[in-house]
Parts: sequence; structure tokens; C-alpha cells
Amino acid sequence: MKAKKAVILLSGGIDSATAAAIAIEQGFDLHALVFSYGQRHGIEIESAKSLARFFGITDCRIIEIPAEIFRSALTDKDRAVPKNRKSSGRGIPDTYVPGRNIIFLSYALAYAESIGASCIFIGATAVDYSGYPDCRPEFFKAFQLMADIGTKSGVGGKKISIETPLIGLSKARIIQKGSSLGVDYSLTHSCYDPGPDGRACGSCDSCLIRKKGFNDAGVPDPTRYRIH
Amino acid sequence: MKAKKAVILLSGGIDSATAAAIAIEQGFDLHALVFSYGQRHGIEIESAKSLARFFGITDCRIIEIPAEIFRSALTDKDRAVPKNRKSSGRGIPDTYVPGRNIIFLSYALAYAESIGASCIFIGATAVDYSGYPDCRPEFFKAFQLMADIGTKSGVGGKKISIETPLIGLSKARIIQKGSSLGVDYSLTHSCYDPGPDGRACGSCDSCLIRKKGFNDAGVPDPTRYRIH
Repeated sequence: MKAKKAVILLSGGIDSATAAAIAIEQGFDLHALVFSYGQRHGIEIESAKSLARFFGITDCRIIEIPAEIFRSALTDKDRAVPKNRKSSGRGIPDTYVPGRNIIFLSYALAYAESIGASCIFIGATAVDYSGYPDCRPEFFKAFQLMADIGTKSGVGGKKISIETPLIGLSKARIIQKGSSLGVDYSLTHSCYDPGPDGRACGSCDSCLIRKKGFNDAGVPDPTRYRIH
Repeated sequence: MKAKKAVILLSGGIDSATAAAIAIEQGFDLHALVFSYGQRHGIEIESAKSLARFFGITDCRIIEIPAEIFRSALTDKDRAVPKNRKSSGRGIPDTYVPGRNIIFLSYALAYAESIGASCIFIGATAVDYSGYPDCRPEFFKAFQLMADIGTKSGVGGKKISIETPLIGLSKARIIQKGSSLGVDYSLTHSCYDPGPDGRACGSCDSCLIRKKGFNDAGVPDPTRYRIH
């Protein structure tokens, strides 16, 4: 039987790697989109490519988005990445990238409809996350409604489903789930501000969440940090 | 007083040119996005650039979208553009491009938030149009809701408004409106299947709608058609 197709948004991080493993477990033939948008942690694109190879995803497309579309501490080299923030749950931090998941999902939707995929998998989580508005369940619900109305598939009754299998999971639960599915997390990258040698800074929001996740999950953290 | 900013989606056609003129009349300082997505009528990009110069828009960005994201008669050179269709209002034609306006608006939203623009202008019309689901008022309403939920601006109460000033206008009314605002329609391009010399085919949906529009408006059509 021919496998059902899905589009996966691969960032190179823990969450998208785990979402890919879950989609494969569910029997999907995955087609990956990876975005290069001038992010200062461009190294994550190499992680995404490694993960695609790891999962045997042969259709892995790198999409270039001009950096000037997004203005954020994550894309602007002149702005500092916040470090050692006390809480990662208060307010929307400077690393927010305007419209990022909206653009990523829009590409996924267009590509899914073009290749006849029935689902889009995105590894968003709204538990241990940075407070971005485009990571919340209500955002995905609104995007789904818009997609159903704005596409030929949606209007014709063959809706393309936005799947967020991690949305209610803590980072520790995500890591436990992925580990149980055999995900090699040494291939993933999380740090927003890696050094020239690719090592993680150990103190940005993303590193702090990652470290705590492995610790809480009781899974060894394979990351090479500059500062522990 | 500093002019309020808006992002305009410029395609090079009659509608986006007219929407730009309306936005300028309303006092907006325009920032244009133009998309190159492997459309067979790539000549429209030159029209969009000419229109940006005509309107004095200095910030005009050409965004490249890989053609393989969209599969459509409009981007696939092996598929034929439908000609001389009896009605342009029945069903969704082959020239439908999956997720096109969704991607375009997503870019506009990200860029608007990045530069502090309060509005996005798009020259969509749901009267004399090709039946695309992403041109209908209910689609724009759903996109607006999604944008309000998925952006920092929206969550913070400074919503970015999606403006569709032409949505309820016939092509003839659009042309009359633009003519009254001094739009030079000789700079615009509509044909989906232009010849090597740039002349319009005269028989695709877009040409048929354009011809009828000028005729009904009582405005001379400046288009060079291969077939009249």
C-alpha cells in the first residue's frame, strides 16, 4: 500500500525531530521543508539536513527567506540574544520572529496541496516554550480554519490537517517520547547563539529549556556546550 | 507628520496597481512586495517594478519562491493555460496556485510587523475573478483572525489590518477608480500566457476579464494583444 504523504517542518531542533519520528510511526511518507532566513544559528539547517538523512526523508527542500523580512534578535546580528533570563514564560521575548510560523506553515500548506499530502506536522509546543504567539494552540486552530477556507482542498472537503503532536507535552516528555522512538538527539541543535565551532552557548532561552528538558527526562544530554 | 506605513502586494496587474493608488490616496507610505514564483507570465514582475517607480515606492522587494512549491497550470510549463472559457465564474480553474495568497499575505504580515506598518493592501476582487478560494472575503476574514492571534502586534492590541479595497468592485469599477486616480494602466500586465515579445494572448481568463473590464468601463484598453 502506498504510504500517505505528510509535510514536516524540520528546524533541526529537538521538537521537529520528535514530530518527524511520531509522523513516521503513524505511517506517513514525509516531505521536509527547512527554512534559511538569516537566523544567526544557521547551523541548525545542517542539523535539519542530517535529521532528514537519519529519517530517510529523500524530499528535503531548503527554502530561502530574505532576512530583511524578519526583524528580530534572532536574525539581526546587531541585537543581542537575551541570556540567563529568569523565566522563559513571561512576555514575548526579543527572539520572537514576526510571522515566522505563519510563513513556514503557509509554505507547508502550499506544498502539501501541490503534492497531495493530507497532513502537515509541526513540532510546536506550548509548555516549555518562549511565549511566542504563533506557538499556541489557538493560533494553530485559527491557521487551520484559514487554510480550510483559503485552499481548493479545504473548500473541496479534503482538508489538509495541521498536526501538532507535541503541543501539550513538556520538553522532558518530548525527549522521552523521541528517545523511545530512537531519535538521535546528538544530530539536533537548539542554541540561538552558537560559537564559530558550532558549540551551544548554554545560556540562551533555547539552551536553558534544552538542558532542563534532558535533565528532567533523565536522558543524557548529547549537546556540546561552551558553558555548562 | 510622518506618513503611516503600509505594505502593498504588487503583482503588476490592474488590481494591485489600483489598490496602491487607493492606499496612497489614503495617505500611506507604501512598502512593496513582489513575488517571483516561476509564473509563466514572469513579465508581470517587470510591470510591478515599473508600477513601483510610477508610484514613487522606493522600498520594493522581489521575493523568490521556489517554483516547485506550487504546482499549477500557471507555473508548470507542461500544462496548458485554459483559453476562451465560456464562464470564468464556474469552479476553480487549473490556473489556481495552491496557497499563493496565503504565502503572499504571510510575507506581508511578517514584513509589516517588522517595519511597524499598520496595514496590508491587497488588490483582491471577488467580482470579476477566477473563482480562487483565496480571493474571497471569507478567506481574508479568516486570515485576519489568524494574524491577530499569531503575531505579537495582534496579541498586543496593535492589529495589522488586511485591506481589500477592491473586494466588492467589478473590473470596470476598478478601472474607473484607478483612472480617476491617474493610474497608468499601460504599465500593467494581466495575461497568463504572454508571447516572447510580451504581448498578451487575448484569450486566457485573465485577458478576457481585462478586455471586458476596459470595455465596460468605457476606458481605452492600452494592452497590446496578439489576438483581438
